[in-house]
Formats: sequence, structure tokens, C-alpha cells
Amino acid sequence: MQPLDSLFRPQSVAVIGASKNREKLGNVILRNVLRSGYGGAVYPVNPRETEIEGLKTFPSVSEIGKPVELAVVVVPAERVLDVARDCGGAGVKNLIVISAGFKETGPEGLVREKELAELCRSYGMRLVGPNCVGLMDTHTPLNASFAAGFPLKGEIAFVSQSGAMLVAILDWSLTVGLGFSRCISMGNKAGLDEADFFTAAVADPNTKVILCYIEDVKDGGHFLAAAEEATRHKPVIVLKSGTSRAGAQAASSHTGALAGSDVAYDAAFKQTGIIRVKKMSELFDLAMVFARQPVPRGSRVAIVTNSGGPGIVATDNVEARGLEVARFTRETIEALRRELPLEASVFNPVDVMGDARVERFRFALDRVLADEGVDSAVVLLCHTAVAEPVETAAAIAEVKEKHPEKPVLAVYMGGESLAAGVELLAEKGIPCFSFPEVAVEALSGLVAYGSIKERPPKEDLPVYHDVDPGVVRRILTRVREDRRRTLLGSEAAQVATAYGIPAAPILLARRAAEAVTFAAELGYPVVLKVASPEIVHKTDIGGVQIGLKTPEEIREAFWGIMEQVNQHLPRAVVYGIEVQRMYPKGTELIVGMTRDVQFGPLIAFGLGGIYVNLLKDVAFRLTWGMGERGIREMIRETKAFTLIRGYRGEKPLDLPALANIIGRVGRLVTDFPEIVELDINPIFLYQEGAAALDVKITIE
Amino acid sequence: MQPLDSLFRPQSVAVIGASKNREKLGNVILRNVLRSGYGGAVYPVNPRETEIEGLKTFPSVSEIGKPVELAVVVVPAERVLDVARDCGGAGVKNLIVISAGFKETGPEGLVREKELAELCRSYGMRLVGPNCVGLMDTHTPLNASFAAGFPLKGEIAFVSQSGAMLVAILDWSLTVGLGFSRCISMGNKAGLDEADFFTAAVADPNTKVILCYIEDVKDGGHFLAAAEEATRHKPVIVLKSGTSRAGAQAASSHTGALAGSDVAYDAAFKQTGIIRVKKMSELFDLAMVFARQPVPRGSRVAIVTNSGGPGIVATDNVEARGLEVARFTRETIEALRRELPLEASVFNPVDVMGDARVERFRFALDRVLADEGVDSAVVLLCHTAVAEPVETAAAIAEVKEKHPEKPVLAVYMGGESLAAGVELLAEKGIPCFSFPEVAVEALSGLVAYGSIKERPPKEDLPVYHDVDPGVVRRILTRVREDRRRTLLGSEAAQVATAYGIPAAPILLARRAAEAVTFAAELGYPVVLKVASPEIVHKTDIGGVQIGLKTPEEIREAFWGIMEQVNQHLPRAVVYGIEVQRMYPKGTELIVGMTRDVQFGPLIAFGLGGIYVNLLKDVAFRLTWGMGERGIREMIRETKAFTLIRGYRGEKPLDLPALANIIGRVGRLVTDFPEIVELDINPIFLYQEGAAALDVKITIE
Repeated sequence: MQPLDSLFRPQSVAVIGASKNREKLGNVILRNVLRSGYGGAVYPVNPRETEIEGLKTFPSVSEIGKPVELAVVVVPAERVLDVARDCGGAGVKNLIVISAGFKETGPEGLVREKELAELCRSYGMRLVGPNCVGLMDTHTPLNASFAAGFPLKGEIAFVSQSGAMLVAILDWSLTVGLGFSRCISMGNKAGLDEADFFTAAVADPNTKVILCYIEDVKDGGHFLAAAEEATRHKPVIVLKSGTSRAGAQAASSHTGALAGSDVAYDAAFKQTGIIRVKKMSELFDLAMVFARQPVPRGSRVAIVTNSGGPGIVATDNVEARGLEVARFTRETIEALRRELPLEASVFNPVDVMGDARVERFRFALDRVLADEGVDSAVVLLCHTAVAEPVETAAAIAEVKEKHPEKPVLAVYMGGESLAAGVELLAEKGIPCFSFPEVAVEALSGLVAYGSIKERPPKEDLPVYHDVDPGVVRRILTRVREDRRRTLLGSEAAQVATAYGIPAAPILLARRAAEAVTFAAELGYPVVLKVASPEIVHKTDIGGVQIGLKTPEEIREAFWGIMEQVNQHLPRAVVYGIEVQRMYPKGTELIVGMTRDVQFGPLIAFGLGGIYVNLLKDVAFRLTWGMGERGIREMIRETKAFTLIRGYRGEKPLDLPALANIIGRVGRLVTDFPEIVELDINPIFLYQEGAAALDVKITIE
Repeated sequence: MQPLDSLFRPQSVAVIGASKNREKLGNVILRNVLRSGYGGAVYPVNPRETEIEGLKTFPSVSEIGKPVELAVVVVPAERVLDVARDCGGAGVKNLIVISAGFKETGPEGLVREKELAELCRSYGMRLVGPNCVGLMDTHTPLNASFAAGFPLKGEIAFVSQSGAMLVAILDWSLTVGLGFSRCISMGNKAGLDEADFFTAAVADPNTKVILCYIEDVKDGGHFLAAAEEATRHKPVIVLKSGTSRAGAQAASSHTGALAGSDVAYDAAFKQTGIIRVKKMSELFDLAMVFARQPVPRGSRVAIVTNSGGPGIVATDNVEARGLEVARFTRETIEALRRELPLEASVFNPVDVMGDARVERFRFALDRVLADEGVDSAVVLLCHTAVAEPVETAAAIAEVKEKHPEKPVLAVYMGGESLAAGVELLAEKGIPCFSFPEVAVEALSGLVAYGSIKERPPKEDLPVYHDVDPGVVRRILTRVREDRRRTLLGSEAAQVATAYGIPAAPILLARRAAEAVTFAAELGYPVVLKVASPEIVHKTDIGGVQIGLKTPEEIREAFWGIMEQVNQHLPRAVVYGIEVQRMYPKGTELIVGMTRDVQFGPLIAFGLGGIYVNLLKDVAFRLTWGMGERGIREMIRETKAFTLIRGYRGEKPLDLPALANIIGRVGRLVTDFPEIVELDINPIFLYQEGAAALDVKITIE
């Protein structure tokens, strides 16, 4: 039994709020169920009618007297709770609440929605919606929605947070001949959400690819787990909108959703193997390719064309998308040279020339697909006087069958004269596009999924046995008792040290003599800094003195700082003066953490120092699933890595020491959820070892 | 009389190589001329026929006995020169050579092509091709090509280096209803090229927008001048392929063209106001919008939608494309609030809700277009049960007419149910797309052209009266006499100084005592470097000593360097030891120059120092048209500018000093074309002044 089987393949469906009026949703849904060819029992429910659309009608679900697996509810919002209670009592397994008037309308609706969700939970009843269009399964078949059309049978599951988008896409899909296995409008997602539908789609034998449009994720943990598992079995392609600032505003006024930061979404998608697209068209171009073509072993693309120009455009786009223009073996080149006309280009892209009929296409495509240096092929056919679009379509499909493991995409450039060929390609399962760049874009998604599918198992955050949470707990308690949210430099250094992060120790001196003693302990030269959470720009008011080499210099600096602070900020609470040894300059890096509302701690790594904001050379990872491998991948994504591995002949820096710091920061913020922000900037990384010079920690 | 008028609107056309065989190009072209509705005289030329397609046929052009304005030549390559000579003698004004067998076939063809071009020049006869499809003008009308279809009459001129692409696009355009004013296949461009066709299209009253596909530019200067003038009158949109390394290979094997570096093309397009696209679809999406909608005053976009999801996707894309999501005035918001349902979103994007019929669309669109904070609008209509696609199309067109200066684009998402609406929009001149991101992409091109059209007049490279070319000439002569291509540091510093570039002076000492004298002249501390063009990595072999503060240290360093060099590279030619004063550290910048084969000197500016290659924060400009304004724009494009204008509260650096260096470098490399490469890295820029620390110059 597959997950959500009783939802997508119920034995019986009740439509609550069924109506005789064909203009009303209560009638549209009932007729949709009937017209879709659904084979189970259908029960209209309406207390004021005895018969609708030729079916016996019941006053309530409990009075049907037979088991109901799925109830579709389309009564006014005020009556939904009563209906749900009735359904729960009658043992209904699944509820689709079409009705609007919940969270999206304001506080009152939100309360109603929470009650509905709680009520369904208490009865063990699954909930789709409220405020949704419904769902469809073309293989059951069942159309439990008010969408006008029923999609073609296909292998694409489409999960959408926007009902309107779902309806528009269904309508569009009929004209382009795209089929779906399932379409789900999730509405307000009070019960089931995208994570549940991903899991169900993975188990569904009729689904090959999962498409999803979302505006937000409500339960980050649930989403991450479900997505990470799903993408190991089937490609999941997501359009997540609200990426722009203005878009995020629209998202939140539209669905009352709190959109998380987009960087966190990017990290979540990447870490779970989701393919993220930014355009609606790309969602469906990719779906078409995934539904019909295999995932290639690699990124080496062969191009066969009857026209040079479009061939070059395709080649440009192959490189722009990070794919490889395949290099043919000598055998391939020689074979092409033998069979093709003299003027033909036998290197990639292969130009079979404008006077090519079907045979040259057939030969060239077969030959390049046989080359072991080729993982996939794009065939471009331009309308010419002698082109044979239909015959070529048949030949492409035939050749493709000889090379089942290599995807083949077609680009037919022209109009009516190519229509029959385009149609034949569709029939034969060869995706066909109007312009080369679109084919290449779709192919790049297919290639990306190759490594996603084969990725190693999910990692966990490293565990360190030498950490001392007790120290951290005591410091944080003291800070809270002090009614502060920001740790002093000395405290932050102690916290870091307790977790094995090589923080440069900072000692808090209350008197000049103490500073001198500390300097002797730490070693000269030292730097003195005023310790006060109220003084942010310490340098500006003369609160920092560097390069102090003798006890005399320290004493002088101590009193100097105190005087400056007194003069500029006489009311600031001063905890003392921090003493820190000066470190030899290393490569300046930054490691930081912010906590994402949906996905938890988000770790940042990149080039540090004062130019952090200027250069913005930063990679991000959620601590979720960030193990040793993830940490190294993250480091490699930055330009900083070029420095670390040894820039321009210099010796490499201590990568393990850096990875260790990142892992330990991840562990620290995981163990202490009250840490809401953390910044280590700069970290000096050396050829051996590292030093965390300045640690900033903020708690809730 | 417009340029190329006798080519596009000839009084008479001869088809040389006309044939009775309907399969042959010589027949296809003749029939195309006749079928296109051409009103002038048509003369088939073929020595073996007396009559073709009902027309009297002549053995040669000279025997026609009447003036021939245009001759289309489709005889075998070997006979083209004879035919051209005959045409020239008969006073033919324009020649279109369809025949292949020229440059594209190898050295022999190249010779033939050069002879053809020379011959045409000598007769004052314009040449299109060879190796082309021909050209069309839908307004003349005239189809002087072998393309199968004749495009719809329209306002788009399409100039293509690829004949196949032209033919395919024509075929495609008929199915989507896109019209053209002119279509030109340029072939090998032995005579007329894109620059000529740009100029002609600007003068053509039937052309509103110019599209171009090219793989290379042959005459950079001609192109720059023509493009810079053309874009002030009409938008020019170019797809230049061969941007990738692999693509460039294909380009050169395809047309035998030498593709210039893509950075130079980018600079050339930007500096001449050309809108560059990377995708074929974008070329035509933009064309459609330009042909039918006005250029907006600014970038503030209003979105009106009946579905939240697509509205958010559109908003995301507006920001991603660098456009602005318009902020409505209070009056607009209040008016929308009054007239739209309670749940509607009255901020941008305006959501008129899924149950909207035509009236809400009409009201909302009219209201936002009336807002002075809105420059353009995108209307999204999703297929819903109550949507009125046709009525809404009419309403959009009506409202649009009330606001003629503001472009309006539509997105109709759905299938067959919207087809009639889509058709009406096309009829009314409202561009309509299937997905929001496509509309936004096209709109962004329209917005970009707003500032292109209104840009200030072209600048010239600044002139400096204090430069001393004599010094430079003498140094370069000496270097050449020395059979070197690389200048010594001291020579390069002198060259820079002669052009007013504040190079840190370098004196070449041959003996230790001389070094001491020079140090006293320059001021302590100094740095010593071995002077040898054969030693590239001077530091590695101990050839550099820094921070020398006394005569003793200098003497010691001098002998130390000599010893090290002797030990490591005993055979290296050593010119002596360079003495340079050490400068206080400033912000490290780079200014450089490489010479592009098509477009001349290409200036680079960005962050300098050892991380140049790591950070790649560099902007480029051709010296062509690089005046004071261009120099400042170039600086502002980099992250370095953030430092220059005063980073994080620091005082701004000396921008005029930097601009001065860039301008003077431009002047130097313009005055001395033998300088093929120049690098100043680093330049130290200070709050006052700048110092060019290390100048490298290479000559031919």
C-alpha cells in the first residue's frame, strides 16, 4: 500500500456541498468526478436535495451508511468545521477542503484553520487545503477538483501552492500535449504539504518526475527529510517564488506566509538535491525532458545540425550552462569525414549542411551517439528546401532506440512546414523545442540530476567529543542574568574555546596591573580594547590600542583608553579592558551563522576581513546534513579556496583546521539554539593552524 | 534618396543563372521575384534559353539593353567573376551573389572572393554575399532570395550572417504572425556588411527595429561608427554567437571568420548602444515588443494579475532583470481599494482575484497606468472559469490607447480557451506571452533602450597637451634596436611619465655606488630589483630586496642580488639593478590594455594587486569613444569603486587622479599602435594622488 493511496485512489468519494446549479463549484466538482471516469462509489451530500446529476443525494456523510474514503468539501467556511466533525465521526479517511475563508482572510480565518487542522488530526483524517482547487490522478482516474479540464495521462506529478497557476497550466498542457500523473492544489497547506506529496509521488509507479510550485515551506525539517529522500529516486524540480524583496512582500500578502530568506531556500534545495528553476517555462521544459529521456552519465553533449548558425548558438549555450562540448574520438571523426560531404564540419557541432536529407542526419546522429565520449545529443533541423522533417523525426527516434542510455533532444526551427515532424517527435517521445537554447537549458537539468541521483548518503554534522557545553552554559546564563544579548569579546572567545575553536584568548583586565600580568601570560605584543557592549565602534573613540610591547606601554594605553572613553561616552557601562595577544597576519576568512526561521542554522564561509561586504565571496550551508564532505564542498565553492589551496605557487593553507572550525561552529549553534547569530571575522588561516581573532555571539 | 535604395527598391532586376527547372535555385529565385508582387522590370538571364516562366530571357546582362539596378547571380562559382564583369560593364548598380564556392571553401575560394570584391569596387557596384540566400523587402515588395516563404509585412529588419537561420526564422514567423520590413542574408560579407544594413535600416521609414545575427565583425571601425549612429534612432538587437571557446571554433570553421575576443564584442556593443541577447528566442521576443510598443520613460513596472502565484513570479523576474516594481501613490491605492474586492491586493502586483471578469482588469490597468510612478505595465490573465479573455484583450487595448506613452504587455496563461483573446491582442498590437518571465525579459530590453536612445553624444578620447611622444618614440626605437619586445621597468616608467602617468621613477644602476646615488635622489627607503627581460619571477631567485634604508644596506643588497642571479641564472643578460623608492601603501588597482584585432585598444580597470585573477573585478572599454564620462562609468562598474568613493566611513580616494591615468593610458596606446600590451599593476591610489608602481609594456 502506497502512502496517500486512499487519497489518490479512494474506493468512494463524497462531495459535500454538491449542488444542482451547474454554475456552482459544488456541481462542477461532482461532474468532474463523474466525467473523469472514476470507478468507485460517488455520494453527493446536500441536506436540501435528494438527487443531483442522477445520483442519490445524502443529507450528511454520516447518513450515507457506507465507508467514505475521500470527502471533498465545498460548503461555506462557517460550516466547514461541522462538516469535518461529521466526516471524522463517519470514519472518512481524507478531506479535501475547497472552501476559502481561512488563513488567507485574516486572524479569524486563521483561528478557524487551526481548529480544522486540529479536528482532522484528532480523527486521524488527512487534510488537503483549505482554500484549494482540489486534486487529480489521471491513472486512477479521478478529478476531485473544480478545474475545467482533465489533463492527459502522463508521468509528471505537479504539486502547486497556487490553484490559479495549476488551472492555467492544465489548460495550457492540453494544447502542447503534456500529460500529468497527478495534479495537486495544496491551498493553505493546513494538513498535507509538499513534503507529503513528494513522498507519495516517489511511491507512485505512474510518476517519473515531480514538479512543484511553492511560495513558502512551513515545516523546514519535514521538508528537508522528505526532499532529500525523494530526489534519490525521482527528480524534483521546484519553482519557489518570492525570491525578490518585492516578491516576498507579495507572497506574504497573498498567502499570509512568512517567506524565509532566499539564501536559506537555495541552500535547502541544493542540499536536498532539488533542481531549482526561476522561470515557469523552465519548469515544464524540464518536465518534458525528464518524463521522456534517460538521465545521461555525464555532461558531454554532441550537436548535429543542418545549419551552422544555430549550431554555434547551441554550442555557446552548452558552455554557458556548464555542460561540455563533446570531443569525438578519431574513429568518429574519420567515419563522419568518409560519409559526409567535403564541406561538412565533422567536429562538434557536426554540420551535415543545408542540403542534408534524412540519411545524413541518421548517419551522423548514430555515429556520435556510438562515441564513448558522448553522453547526450541535440539534433537541430532548420527548415530548408530539401529538409525531410518527418523522415528525420522517424530516423531520430530509431537511432535513439539503439542508444537507450543516452538522451536525445531535438530542435526544429521553422514553422508549418515542420509541424508534422514535430508531431511525430512528440509521439516518439523525443522532446522537441523551437530554439536551441531552450533544448540546452532542459538538457542541463537532466545532466544535473545525474550527479544528484548518484550522490553519497546524507551526512550528519560531525560530533566532537572534546567540547565542553558546561562552560558555554555557564557563560550564557551569566550574560542572560546581565540582561545582555551580546557576549563580551572575552566571553565569546571562551565559548569558542570550549568548543575547540582556536580563538585567540582574550582576558578581561579591570586594572592596569592586571593587564600587564595578562600580557605576560599571553605573550607580547598585545592589543588592548575597551570591553563594553554599549560601544560598537571602539576604534572611533580611541578605545583600541595595538602593538603594545612593554609593561609601560600597556599601562599608558590602559589609562589612555579609559580617559578617551570617559571623555566620549561618560555614561557607557565599561566592563574593563580586553587584553589579546597580536597574531601574525594570515589569510583573512570569515565563518558565520544566522538562524533561518524555516531551516535552522545557516552557516556562511568566505573571504573575511574588512572587505567581506565588498567582495561577497561567501558560500552557505544549512547545518542540516552538513558533514565533512559538505563542509569541504562549501569551502571549494568560494574564491577563498583558490587562496587556501595555494595561490600562485604559494604553499597550501591548513584546510583541515578550517574545516574543523566550520564543523565546530555548526555543532556549537546546534547544541545551543539560543545562539541566534555568530560571526568569526577575521579568522587568520596559516599554513599550519588557524586563529579566530574576533568572535561575536548574540543570543535570543 | 535613402542609402541602398537602388538595392531594396530597384527599378529592374536581372536573375543571372535563371533556369526552367523548378527544382533549381535559378528558377526558385525568379519565381520568388515574380510572386512577391514586385512591380519593376524582371529579366531572366541564361544563354541557353529564350523564355523562362513566361519572360523573355537574355543571354547576358549586357544584352538586355536596358538599365539593370539589381542583378541576382546564381551561376557556378567559376563563372561568377565573368558575370560580375559583364554586369559592371552594363552599369548594374547592385549585385547579390547567391553562389557558394568562395571563402568558405578554402584558399582558392578566398582568392576568388577577393577578386570579386575588387572587381565590384572597381565598377562602383555594390555587392551582397557571396554564399548567401538573398534579400527581401516586404514594402517594395521584392523577394530576391531563394527562401521558400515571403514574410508578412512588418516593421522589423532582420540582418543575418546565417542564411539557414534566416530561412528557418521566416518559416517560423509565418506561424506566429511576426512581420518583417526587410530580411537580408549577408553570406560571406565580401561587400556590404551589417554596418551598411544598419545605416540603410535607420533611413528606411518602414523599419522600426533592427535585428541582427552575426558570427563576427570584419571592419571594427566601420561597425562601431554605424552602430553608434543607428542606435540613436532605432533599437538594434544583436545575437552574436561564438561566445564560448567551443563556439568560436565552430564559428571559424563555419565561415572562416576570425572571431574576436568576446569581451571586446561586449564592450563594442555596450559602447555603441546595441542590445545584446544570448538566446534566439529573446531576439524575436524583443523585436515583437519594440515593433509594437513605445519605449517607456523609466523602469517602474506595474503588474495586474488575476492569480497571485504568476504575479509573484513576474515580480521576482522584474527585480532579477534590474527593473523596478513600481510603488503606487496613495491616490492609486485608495482608488483600487474602493473598487476592488476586499481580498484583492491593491499594492503592486495588483491581484484582481481569480473571480475577476473584464471590468476589474480594465479598472485596475487604467488606474495604475494613470499613476505617475508607473512607466509600464504587465497584465497577467490566467485561465479561470469566469475569465473573459477576449473582452479583457479588447479592454487592455482600449486602456492602452489612453496611455500611449506607456508600454503594456500581456501574459495569457492557459491553452485553447484563451486563443481568441491572444489573437485579438496580436491584432491590437499588444505583445502577448505564455509565461510571465518572458514578458518581463522583453520589457527589460525596451527599458534599456530608453536610456540608450537618450544618451549624450559620443565622446572622444581626452587630449593631453603635456605629453611628450618624442621620449616614447626614442625609447621604443631603442628597445626595437635591442631586439626586445618587453620594456625594462625603467623604460616603461619613463614612457608612462612622458605621458603624464604618475609612475614611480625607476633608475637603472650599473654599479652599487650608482644605486646609492640614485637612492639619495629618489629618497629612502628604496627597493632594488634585478633588471633583465629574461628573468620573469624575480622574487623567486632572490632578485628583489625591499625596505633598504641606508647606503650600506643598498650596497649589500646590490651585491647580494648579483650573486643570487649569478648562481641561479648565470647566462641571463642583466642590464643592471633597478632602484625605486618605496611608496606608502595605497588601495591597489590595475589599469591595463590589450589590442583587439577588430576593435583596437581595449582598456581594463579593476582591483589590483596579487588577487587580480582571483577576484576578476574588472571593467572593459574600447578606447573608441572613451571620454571622461566613459572612464567614470567604467570605474563605477567595478567593486573597486566602492573602495574609491570611501568604504565604510573612510575618506574617498582621488578619483580624478585615477581617471586621468586611464585616459592617458588610452592616449598612449592610441598614439603608439606598436604597443600591443600594457599593464600597470599595482597602482596605489591615495586620498590625494596616485602612484603607478609597476608598469609593463610589450611592443610588436
